[in-house]
Amino acid sequence: MNRQKIANIIDRKSHSNWICTAYDWFMVSTILISLLPLMVMKSHKVFWYTELGSTLVFIIDYLLRWGTADIRNDNRKSAFLTYPFSLMAIIDLLSILPAITLLNPAFKLFRFVRLLRLTRVLKIFGISSKVRLFMSILYKERQVLSSVLVLALLYIFVTALILFNVEPHINPYTGQQTFHSFFDALYWATVTLTTVGYGDMCPATDVGRFVSMLSSLFGIAVIALPSGVITASYLDELRRKRDR
Amino acid sequence: MNRQKIANIIDRKSHSNWICTAYDWFMVSTILISLLPLMVMKSHKVFWYTELGSTLVFIIDYLLRWGTADIRNDNRKSAFLTYPFSLMAIIDLLSILPAITLLNPAFKLFRFVRLLRLTRVLKIFGISSKVRLFMSILYKERQVLSSVLVLALLYIFVTALILFNVEPHINPYTGQQTFHSFFDALYWATVTLTTVGYGDMCPATDVGRFVSMLSSLFGIAVIALPSGVITASYLDELRRKRDR
Amino acid sequence: MNRQKIANIIDRKSHSNWICTAYDWFMVSTILISLLPLMVMKSHKVFWYTELGSTLVFIIDYLLRWGTADIRNDNRKSAFLTYPFSLMAIIDLLSILPAITLLNPAFKLFRFVRLLRLTRVLKIFGISSKVRLFMSILYKERQVLSSVLVLALLYIFVTALILFNVEPHINPYTGQQTFHSFFDALYWATVTLTTVGYGDMCPATDVGRFVSMLSSLFGIAVIALPSGVITASYLDELRRKRDR
Amino acid sequence: MNRQKIANIIDRKSHSNWICTAYDWFMVSTILISLLPLMVMKSHKVFWYTELGSTLVFIIDYLLRWGTADIRNDNRKSAFLTYPFSLMAIIDLLSILPAITLLNPAFKLFRFVRLLRLTRVLKIFGISSKVRLFMSILYKERQVLSSVLVLALLYIFVTALILFNVEPHINPYTGQQTFHSFFDALYWATVTLTTVGYGDMCPATDVGRFVSMLSSLFGIAVIALPSGVITASYLDELRRKRDR
Repeated sequence: MNRQKIANIIDRKSHSNWICTAYDWFMVSTILISLLPLMVMKSHKVFWYTELGSTLVFIIDYLLRWGTADIRNDNRKSAFLTYPFSLMAIIDLLSILPAITLLNPAFKLFRFVRLLRLTRVLKIFGISSKVRLFMSILYKERQVLSSVLVLALLYIFVTALILFNVEPHINPYTGQQTFHSFFDALYWATVTLTTVGYGDMCPATDVGRFVSMLSSLFGIAVIALPSGVITASYLDELRRKRDR
Repeated sequence: MNRQKIANIIDRKSHSNWICTAYDWFMVSTILISLLPLMVMKSHKVFWYTELGSTLVFIIDYLLRWGTADIRNDNRKSAFLTYPFSLMAIIDLLSILPAITLLNPAFKLFRFVRLLRLTRVLKIFGISSKVRLFMSILYKERQVLSSVLVLALLYIFVTALILFNVEPHINPYTGQQTFHSFFDALYWATVTLTTVGYGDMCPATDVGRFVSMLSSLFGIAVIALPSGVITASYLDELRRKRDR
Repeated sequence: MNRQKIANIIDRKSHSNWICTAYDWFMVSTILISLLPLMVMKSHKVFWYTELGSTLVFIIDYLLRWGTADIRNDNRKSAFLTYPFSLMAIIDLLSILPAITLLNPAFKLFRFVRLLRLTRVLKIFGISSKVRLFMSILYKERQVLSSVLVLALLYIFVTALILFNVEPHINPYTGQQTFHSFFDALYWATVTLTTVGYGDMCPATDVGRFVSMLSSLFGIAVIALPSGVITASYLDELRRKRDR
Repeated sequence: MNRQKIANIIDRKSHSNWICTAYDWFMVSTILISLLPLMVMKSHKVFWYTELGSTLVFIIDYLLRWGTADIRNDNRKSAFLTYPFSLMAIIDLLSILPAITLLNPAFKLFRFVRLLRLTRVLKIFGISSKVRLFMSILYKERQVLSSVLVLALLYIFVTALILFNVEPHINPYTGQQTFHSFFDALYWATVTLTTVGYGDMCPATDVGRFVSMLSSLFGIAVIALPSGVITASYLDELRRKRDR
């Protein structure tokens, strides 16, 4: 098996064969297995072995990618030098680090870096192009969408500030507090604006309820804005594609 | 009453008469009656009789459909042989099976198959064509919509994983756990992303709340995407219809 | 003051003056005052007087409308005969009936009929034309929207049926029931589909939670459909108006 | 430093330099610091100093703006007289007032006026133009959107009135009340219509649940209307911009 073949398997191209697909599935499975310790309550002895195995796979994958860096980058020899500093290579390297938790548990948090490797799932389902389409819509409308975001954050801040001062810090009837801190109020305002509405914190006074009524009604408009912007932009994209 | 007439009654055509409508309503009523045991807490003796009656109706309906299979399929005689292997015939057969619960309760679960027969309701209200329109929109946009679905599932997985590790397994203040298992976290993430927000599980720590704030804000965009795609596609359909 | 003038005041025309506006506001105030007994917990003596007063106003309004029926209907004398059988006249008459509760409390429920008179508020704010626009959109898309409604109801029924059977009738851990009746399950399914998610009933088992996760994800599409249909239709309306 | 320079720094123009940005950030920080006492539970001694400092900054800012009023208004000398009566100047003056709480706590509420100064954040992020775009959309569609608002309010009132009378004032099973007052019912109806659904108040009777099911299903249409109107209007705006 020469280096060209390995490069083809690692980097799926348009003319993909079953080995590419198998390799991608194998890598995603390995990532999921390596994340297993994060999905259980208590540590288990078997994780020692899964960690060892998945780390080995990650190291081999890393070395294979490094070793074929020149082929995968238009045969530029300098790719061998620049590869370790590319974003994906750093992510790959960081996702190997948690294995050191076998020695020192402090590196456990690095395991979350492996989540970034899950973007490979997009490649398996062949939806990278669609995701790029969404990204291009978000990018094209970045000014409008970021304005909506700033407005929404401002709105959350103002609502939270009003509610935090309107609600009694100690409710005379129930003897309980609605908000324990200003952060609680911010959390409540976000949960209300996005219409999630858990209900773990609710305004208990009439004034607080009135403000939250106003804010949830007004919030519909805030929510409708990004929705409308994305719809309009997507429709535009559709039309342009047809005209071509 | 000849076979042609029966075929006309069973398979409602555009020139439907009141007998067709009556037959459809009768079948839907029978299906609903046969589902009654699933809608009550305790079993009741009267269900023995409703089960017997509805099963008889289903058997007769099945035989009538089989007996007129050739007429309903452009007079091809081979339809007699292929009919029992068509999807609708298998559903019809499976929906007769639960009657054996009169003998053995283990078949009770097959009763859910009868729900599939409820698609007949669409025929009664004459909305099959509209449902086909929705289906065609979903089919035409299947790549985009499935991309959104994969993204949403990925998003749910990542949010759940973060929250599951961020939330303390035993809350020092309340002595309660937010999530009892990783599945709980997945359930929470789905309920939050879809803005249902039951509130049976809520983040209790500040870090968890911060992550859930970010995720619910970002979630609006995830929700807005399918909405926008469907709107744009429907608008497209409307315009194409007018141009014709 | 002749009959023509009264007719002008009662039925606001495009060339409305301040007396019309004052009359409309006066009537809406009277309706709201007459609804006051429905907005408090305990009956109060003052309601006897408000009821008497508002009923008198309703009776005078009714008589004035009857007395000017011919003028308000292109001077057709037959309007005197047909007026009491028009929809608005029947509503007006029914809204007088609750006054008999002064004699017999059984008529109290008729008071809700007065809510129908609140449509007069639309006239005050001059939004009748906009409401007609919405109505025309809903009417034009009635086939699609009713299809969505039937689909949503079917969806609610199926989800409720599955959840009702999947959830244990008596939870082994908490000793509580999730649903007390099939109606509870229907209520839960509706609250979930519309993403309200009160949280007074939540699935407690893993299977139930899995079904509700699937259903809430799928529910987004069900919700997006009417939204998309209305948006597309409104956009269509806007364009047609400009082309004219 | 002459007056022209100060005017340039205070009123950011298109050719903004780093001093303008720094000044804007400094003012926003001062506003946030001056709001700190509203974000904590207990008063703290340090707030006495932050209040003093921020008030000094506000006074200087106010004087600088007054002193350069003529330059910032096309060199009209009359601007010195009219400036104190402009909306922004009144807001600026009112935001200085809370400092008197150092003497008399009754002025504490005026601190909320400072929130209005946060609109300066929009200037920092350069999104004033986008906000004006949203405002113009809302203004152009003001008739339709206000109609939707009136309809929604009417809808909330009617739903609340029905639920308030349908729900027992004292539940025979739990011994609890669903609503303590009509205002509670209004709050519930708003929370339901906007699909926030906290769950702190839920209908407990079957009739109440049935009404709330109907209302939440119907509510989707009410929510879809403003969303559709905004989307359509934004799309219109996009197209007009391209045609130019």
